[in-house]
Amino acid sequence: MFTLAELAEKLSARLVGDGSVLISGIAPLYRATQGEITFLLSPTYKSLLADSKASAIVMSKEFLSDYSGNALIVDNPNLTHAQLAAFFVKTTEFSPGIHPSAVVAATATVDPSASIGAHCVIGERVKIGPKTRVGHGTVIGDDCSLGGFCHLASNVTLYNNVKAKDRVTIHSGVVIGADGFGLVNHQGRWIKIPQLGGVSLGNDVEVGANTTIDRGAMDDTILEDGVKCDNQIQIGHNVVIGAHTAIAGCVGIAGSSKIGKHCMIGGASAIADHVEITDQVILTGGAQVSQSITEPGIYSSGCPVQPRLQWHRQVIRTRQLDQLFHRVKKLEQASDEHDHD
Amino acid sequence: MFTLAELAEKLSARLVGDGSVLISGIAPLYRATQGEITFLLSPTYKSLLADSKASAIVMSKEFLSDYSGNALIVDNPNLTHAQLAAFFVKTTEFSPGIHPSAVVAATATVDPSASIGAHCVIGERVKIGPKTRVGHGTVIGDDCSLGGFCHLASNVTLYNNVKAKDRVTIHSGVVIGADGFGLVNHQGRWIKIPQLGGVSLGNDVEVGANTTIDRGAMDDTILEDGVKCDNQIQIGHNVVIGAHTAIAGCVGIAGSSKIGKHCMIGGASAIADHVEITDQVILTGGAQVSQSITEPGIYSSGCPVQPRLQWHRQVIRTRQLDQLFHRVKKLEQASDEHDHD
Amino acid sequence: MFTLAELAEKLSARLVGDGSVLISGIAPLYRATQGEITFLLSPTYKSLLADSKASAIVMSKEFLSDYSGNALIVDNPNLTHAQLAAFFVKTTEFSPGIHPSAVVAATATVDPSASIGAHCVIGERVKIGPKTRVGHGTVIGDDCSLGGFCHLASNVTLYNNVKAKDRVTIHSGVVIGADGFGLVNHQGRWIKIPQLGGVSLGNDVEVGANTTIDRGAMDDTILEDGVKCDNQIQIGHNVVIGAHTAIAGCVGIAGSSKIGKHCMIGGASAIADHVEITDQVILTGGAQVSQSITEPGIYSSGCPVQPRLQWHRQVIRTRQLDQLFHRVKKLEQASDEHDHD
Repeated sequence: MFTLAELAEKLSARLVGDGSVLISGIAPLYRATQGEITFLLSPTYKSLLADSKASAIVMSKEFLSDYSGNALIVDNPNLTHAQLAAFFVKTTEFSPGIHPSAVVAATATVDPSASIGAHCVIGERVKIGPKTRVGHGTVIGDDCSLGGFCHLASNVTLYNNVKAKDRVTIHSGVVIGADGFGLVNHQGRWIKIPQLGGVSLGNDVEVGANTTIDRGAMDDTILEDGVKCDNQIQIGHNVVIGAHTAIAGCVGIAGSSKIGKHCMIGGASAIADHVEITDQVILTGGAQVSQSITEPGIYSSGCPVQPRLQWHRQVIRTRQLDQLFHRVKKLEQASDEHDHD
Repeated sequence: MFTLAELAEKLSARLVGDGSVLISGIAPLYRATQGEITFLLSPTYKSLLADSKASAIVMSKEFLSDYSGNALIVDNPNLTHAQLAAFFVKTTEFSPGIHPSAVVAATATVDPSASIGAHCVIGERVKIGPKTRVGHGTVIGDDCSLGGFCHLASNVTLYNNVKAKDRVTIHSGVVIGADGFGLVNHQGRWIKIPQLGGVSLGNDVEVGANTTIDRGAMDDTILEDGVKCDNQIQIGHNVVIGAHTAIAGCVGIAGSSKIGKHCMIGGASAIADHVEITDQVILTGGAQVSQSITEPGIYSSGCPVQPRLQWHRQVIRTRQLDQLFHRVKKLEQASDEHDHD
Repeated sequence: MFTLAELAEKLSARLVGDGSVLISGIAPLYRATQGEITFLLSPTYKSLLADSKASAIVMSKEFLSDYSGNALIVDNPNLTHAQLAAFFVKTTEFSPGIHPSAVVAATATVDPSASIGAHCVIGERVKIGPKTRVGHGTVIGDDCSLGGFCHLASNVTLYNNVKAKDRVTIHSGVVIGADGFGLVNHQGRWIKIPQLGGVSLGNDVEVGANTTIDRGAMDDTILEDGVKCDNQIQIGHNVVIGAHTAIAGCVGIAGSSKIGKHCMIGGASAIADHVEITDQVILTGGAQVSQSITEPGIYSSGCPVQPRLQWHRQVIRTRQLDQLFHRVKKLEQASDEHDHD
């Protein structure tokens, strides 16, 4: 519970209205009510301002004229949303220490301020830094290291030799360090190439639920500082992802590809192996990248849905396209001859 | 083991032939043998009727003329398949009670008829209803609630504040309630927006293996009654899925999108964020939805495979399409001039 | 640690240079240094040979003229990479026996040379063969069987009735035997068809992290000998995958489809249900297969990315394609008339 004036100070926001009003939570604009603070995050919802029952609204200054209640005026309401939500998140208390049901190797070093959940298994020579929390049922292989203030949720699996720096978050169902898909075909059979590299995660990396990151063949697979991965992503062996790149859900990145810094990879994109994508590239959802991208910019591919019959006709027409080019060429030749008649 | 007459009665089917024959299992038509009952589910397989060694066949009445053995005549053999299979499924016995290796918070309420598997972890204030079975290694976060007759398989993870009503089935590897992918870019770095909502699952929802459903940012992510999800699906934060909608495998649904009731979403479809799809929409496999769909119907996108060289030529031709339009325009102008000569 | 002469003998390679040099590891060509052996796997990197500090390089004979150091000459350096890496892989020691925290049914049979990790749960009548290693937190359902020399990583889930032959590798997060997505629509609601089949994995099958393989409806879902699956793959009920087929990450294969032997399925491909793909088919990444493929060969689909504006124009043009065909037809008719004037 905060007064609006306290929040204004914490957020370096300009206070408009009654600073003594008490704020006990946040809620979206359409349903925020007394005691709650809310946000105008898009001009689309401007019309909801007048009737809002929220105790205060965060907005940028141009909307003040549409509103007469308590407000916090900021430059970037989205950023303020992130900051405010952090004040109200109910974090489960993790008491330091190792749950008695966890199995921890004698050679592992767990900081006394760290917390290891029930039924975890911690391998040989693992190092776990201060204030790092490990959920229940998580398995950490030999020679892994986690920095400080990390959070591994429940049922995470790290194979051996995975290194994470500080403030790394790994969600449930994530598997890091499984073997890369390295195979050689020999007389019709697949021979496995043992994968000897590891995986290295920089500071502030976040890895979404059920994402998989394979270990490198000889070098490490690398996610640099500040990389954010959504759920259900597959990152192949020896991939390098540049700092502060964000990857949305269901993306696949095949082996040995390099993604630049400050990229945004749209959901369900697929990136082939051995491709390089430079810095500051935006791929929209469903992008298929089969060759390197050397210029920053926005790239797209894919075919948005159509009513089925229309789509079917288009598929057929597209298949006749080569033929159409020939027909047009013929017409051009005929027209040419005609001109020269 | 049932007599055919007993099955006819249970299924409200018309019995043709010997009702005293004993049925001990089901099998597909091509290999069903004595003691087994089978199904004609498609006219394609009509030719197998004559030689079938099955003790009885479920079919609709129009096929009786092709067959002289024992039969159960029903309107919808697919439905009867579902009902019959239920008689023969070997369900592992779950004895009520909590496995001694499970770690259950003192404030959790587990119905005495419920069953909690080995190595489970049940959080604070969790409520688990009657006859609900939880497999092994499953972790249920604080303040979750499960209704009656639910089935959570092994190695499921629920974060805190996930609510499921009655008869909900959740398969292994599912993660429900991980943080939505809410980020704000501030000076080139991604700031996390804490996700304060929960996840709410209606009655009779089924969630396939390794599917992920993120918690909402402020509101809940919602799957209404009777929603069926296959495996490896990603459902983003604040998504709402209408009652009795079925979603096939590998689908991705980005944040804040709303799917209507009674929809069928084909496998590997990708639905962008903030999109609304009305009721009774069918998306065929691989559909890419980037805008709202306001009319019921069947929608498609995508390019079925071709032999590689043909496909390659088509990609090139498609990229020259704009140019082709200009060439045709020029021809039309020339033709026009010619007409007016 | 091996001498180069020892490695030459083990690998049946031709030794060039000093056989007494000691080799303690492998590394990629760009950074291999003294004590390490490396590989020339592609002519692209030929220029790195001269300056390499590696103690020896594996190559095919045509590159010897570019290099004056120690070498092992082989026909297939990729194959030699696989063999050499196997000499240097640090395998965690798995001591035989059952971890005291594992819960093993009294009716299960675990070979005394097998190893069962911490917090595992092994169901009724399970059979586990010699030298098979099961990681931590893995759950194996009733009536499963694993042959000899298998490796199940940590946090794997097998439902009941999954059979794996010898030398099968299953990575973390894999779920095998969850219910196939079998539903019948009855009056607007989905009725579940209980899935009574199992899953059967041949010798030398490998299943990548977080891949899911559903149990069959009545028959088994089958992966034949030597099938290799990467991560995040979904294999529907009753699918049959022929021997020695390799499937890259993020592929979805819908129910009842049959893939031939010696196929290569590119990443993020999607294969519809009830499709048959013959032997020796290669699908490139992102292929969408909606109909059977009866001829061996290479098949592709999809649209590689373009700069966004270009892509957008192409989408519009493609939608006008049908109209363009009509315009060209009209021109052809006009031209025809002109010719007959």
